[in-house]
Amino acid sequence: MTLRARLHRQLHIGSWPNGRLTGLNIFVVWTILLALLVGIVATEPQIRIPYQREILIAEFVFGMIFLVEYVGRIYAAPEREGPGSAWAKRWRFILSPIGIIDLIVVAVSLAPFFIANAAVLRVIRLLRIVSILKFSRFSAAMREIGAALRERSYDLIVCATLALVLVLLGAAGLYWVEGSLQPKQFGSIPRALWWAVITLTTVGYGDVYPVTTAGRLVGSIVAIGGVLLVALPTGIVAAAFSDAMQRRREAMARALEDMEGSIPE
Amino acid sequence: MTLRARLHRQLHIGSWPNGRLTGLNIFVVWTILLALLVGIVATEPQIRIPYQREILIAEFVFGMIFLVEYVGRIYAAPEREGPGSAWAKRWRFILSPIGIIDLIVVAVSLAPFFIANAAVLRVIRLLRIVSILKFSRFSAAMREIGAALRERSYDLIVCATLALVLVLLGAAGLYWVEGSLQPKQFGSIPRALWWAVITLTTVGYGDVYPVTTAGRLVGSIVAIGGVLLVALPTGIVAAAFSDAMQRRREAMARALEDMEGSIPE
Amino acid sequence: MTLRARLHRQLHIGSWPNGRLTGLNIFVVWTILLALLVGIVATEPQIRIPYQREILIAEFVFGMIFLVEYVGRIYAAPEREGPGSAWAKRWRFILSPIGIIDLIVVAVSLAPFFIANAAVLRVIRLLRIVSILKFSRFSAAMREIGAALRERSYDLIVCATLALVLVLLGAAGLYWVEGSLQPKQFGSIPRALWWAVITLTTVGYGDVYPVTTAGRLVGSIVAIGGVLLVALPTGIVAAAFSDAMQRRREAMARALEDMEGSIPE
Amino acid sequence: MTLRARLHRQLHIGSWPNGRLTGLNIFVVWTILLALLVGIVATEPQIRIPYQREILIAEFVFGMIFLVEYVGRIYAAPEREGPGSAWAKRWRFILSPIGIIDLIVVAVSLAPFFIANAAVLRVIRLLRIVSILKFSRFSAAMREIGAALRERSYDLIVCATLALVLVLLGAAGLYWVEGSLQPKQFGSIPRALWWAVITLTTVGYGDVYPVTTAGRLVGSIVAIGGVLLVALPTGIVAAAFSDAMQRRREAMARALEDMEGSIPE
Repeated sequence: MTLRARLHRQLHIGSWPNGRLTGLNIFVVWTILLALLVGIVATEPQIRIPYQREILIAEFVFGMIFLVEYVGRIYAAPEREGPGSAWAKRWRFILSPIGIIDLIVVAVSLAPFFIANAAVLRVIRLLRIVSILKFSRFSAAMREIGAALRERSYDLIVCATLALVLVLLGAAGLYWVEGSLQPKQFGSIPRALWWAVITLTTVGYGDVYPVTTAGRLVGSIVAIGGVLLVALPTGIVAAAFSDAMQRRREAMARALEDMEGSIPE
Repeated sequence: MTLRARLHRQLHIGSWPNGRLTGLNIFVVWTILLALLVGIVATEPQIRIPYQREILIAEFVFGMIFLVEYVGRIYAAPEREGPGSAWAKRWRFILSPIGIIDLIVVAVSLAPFFIANAAVLRVIRLLRIVSILKFSRFSAAMREIGAALRERSYDLIVCATLALVLVLLGAAGLYWVEGSLQPKQFGSIPRALWWAVITLTTVGYGDVYPVTTAGRLVGSIVAIGGVLLVALPTGIVAAAFSDAMQRRREAMARALEDMEGSIPE
Repeated sequence: MTLRARLHRQLHIGSWPNGRLTGLNIFVVWTILLALLVGIVATEPQIRIPYQREILIAEFVFGMIFLVEYVGRIYAAPEREGPGSAWAKRWRFILSPIGIIDLIVVAVSLAPFFIANAAVLRVIRLLRIVSILKFSRFSAAMREIGAALRERSYDLIVCATLALVLVLLGAAGLYWVEGSLQPKQFGSIPRALWWAVITLTTVGYGDVYPVTTAGRLVGSIVAIGGVLLVALPTGIVAAAFSDAMQRRREAMARALEDMEGSIPE
Repeated sequence: MTLRARLHRQLHIGSWPNGRLTGLNIFVVWTILLALLVGIVATEPQIRIPYQREILIAEFVFGMIFLVEYVGRIYAAPEREGPGSAWAKRWRFILSPIGIIDLIVVAVSLAPFFIANAAVLRVIRLLRIVSILKFSRFSAAMREIGAALRERSYDLIVCATLALVLVLLGAAGLYWVEGSLQPKQFGSIPRALWWAVITLTTVGYGDVYPVTTAGRLVGSIVAIGGVLLVALPTGIVAAAFSDAMQRRREAMARALEDMEGSIPE
């Protein structure tokens, strides 16, 4: 096996059977997580200011690792399955979603050395975790969840529409009832929307709340509606999962029956 | 095909197979959404005052579109299926729920030019969205949700009754325990009801809360009851959906069996 | 039919097929609901003081209706099914849970005319609603919910135990971490329990909350635990309902098969 | 039966059929619960100071009971099933998780007499309750819940990852948007994390909340995401339980069929 083929096997998640991660994969994954952690912690002034130099060095090291990995992946891209010349495959990788995310992460990691105030951008590294999610069992679970949700997508859109209608009516109600009493909070429907969303999701910060009897009646309706609008999609999702699991079991039972039927007695 | 028939096919949602929307439908739907958005945003004083003239023009244009569409629908009504003379069909459309909603929306859109302070009414346009919901896959999902809820309606009424009893007992409890301590918040059962509803729905604004040990005990019971009273209907709804999906699958399996049985071997 | 038998048929919920309510039943039910409403509203000082005389009269009328109904039920009790002499049946009714609730409701309704400050007691009338819940479809739904919950009672006890452990550990954690910082809120485990319960149920009033990093870590764990501890019992309840519905369908399918099998071809 | 065998039967939960608890078991369980209650209540200064002597005596008695029970268990350990000499079995018990918990509880209960300020440690007694949970029906329920969760562990990890990503993006968003406006609350991503967790779990204390339009938009997304991220795992858990119950019923039906098949007609 050539060096390039070996590099590809090491770098490309999913190239091993059972979606096992190679040593290099694990190293890159931990580097991503560590870089993310450093990026998050470094936003804290109490840490950024005393450890400025250490953070800068760490960021540079992370940027270099990502750059080397990115270049390595481009170099090894011709080993990927599929038709096309080596450079066609390389361009396909560069322009693939994963390739673009990789480039962004490299750019973001090295940007602070050229541009000021780019620190926030480092959270974009979070995107890079997507590549971790590709190993097989994890991605199978994601596909399963996605399929279950997609199957009932119209039911879920109905729920979302009902939620939107309730939020709009609630906001309009409080604007109408308490708009003149609490102009800063309910002086317009867009302002009242914040209250309506926070009530419907049952978060309820308490920075904005109705004070009149009529307003509290509207508030109660939105709050109760919020509880029902949690129950509805949860029930739909539960039924979708239940159905998916049952179908799989039935398919397996049928396959078993067919096998038994094909055995001559 | 006459012009009237063409107009009807364009205007009437559901006249096309698979519930597809026509170009005119889509234009009207976007107009409704845009009019709703303008109506909402226009309640904000910081926008209403500087852009007063623009909003007025937009409102007038929306009102005119709705008026033309309404008149067009009345004109095309004779093309609808069913018996009766042209005018009988027209009156049936005018007096149908959708017809009345259309009239209200037209009236609401043009009202501000004759009556002052009618701005809030514009949220009524939200109702008009109902007509969008009629296109087939969406309405099938709604019917399904409605059927699942209706089937377990007595279970859900039991949950609602339990919630009502808990809210009343919680409010009575806090009125009894802290009524004299926080007279403004818990000085009467109706006043304490606001706290009870906001606690049971787990919104918890924090504008009203018990401060004594006894009050906190009652509060804890209501809060825990709130969690259970979310779990119960969610479970019921989930089971109802699961059941509906299973029945459909079994019905399909039976239909398939019958088909196989009818094929002579 | 004697007058007593007629009175019994009128008064006793469940004596009619399909659990239908008689005219007298409906009158009593509405009286209970109205008396409850008056009792609740009368706790509000802004209503109690100006309408003192009207409330007193209403309360007296309600008390008299309940008294007459109670006496009527005792008088008609011998018509109930089962063995025993007329007076034995009467005593059995008087000492039955429903009979005792009836007596308490009569006593509570007439008490304010003899004892001062008994107003709160009137919420006890809520209990009387239990008798409404006896009509058939409603009570079938309640029995179904009860059976589903009882069947998984050990699973639900496990959830409750986990919740209790999490609440105690959370309270102990915050007492340990912020006990000296916020002595009034977290100065002892019993004091910190209020915070723990309000956080675990995701109510979150905001009257008490951690302020240190360690305290916020504990708070985050309790909050996340709260979400999981809603998901767990909801899932259990949903599965129990789903299972109950499926068993019923299977039982019906089997009954249908047996019927088909018994028809001679 | 020797005294040691009797003692073992009395002490060892699970030694009786059906997981019944012996008189001594019940006494120990109540002692644990009482000791836990005293330990919790004793943290309250208003109780600790006036009743200092009584608490000290109670703690000493509890410590002695735990010590005697621990010594008794070690003494009776050779009666346990399995190979090995008497002392080998004793050491195996001492080093088993339950044995170590027992030792910790004894140490914690007697520590305050030697070390100052060890009161908080008493909550560790909570661990001792684990031994109660071993009686059969309870532990069967726990095993069932554990199995259902484990079976869908990858789905639940996907949910947890989504939650983590949403929390990080929400915190980064608010740090970016309101970091300079509310530096104390959102001045760094770690600081903003507290707000993100409390919003995503829909607790919403209201000690920290966005005040700008952009911040409120991010806040709304996190709050709505929180509702969806409750629905998802709940649905997964519900489906897992439903599946487990169905499989058990099918297994029983198959066993019944096999039995019927083996009966000669």
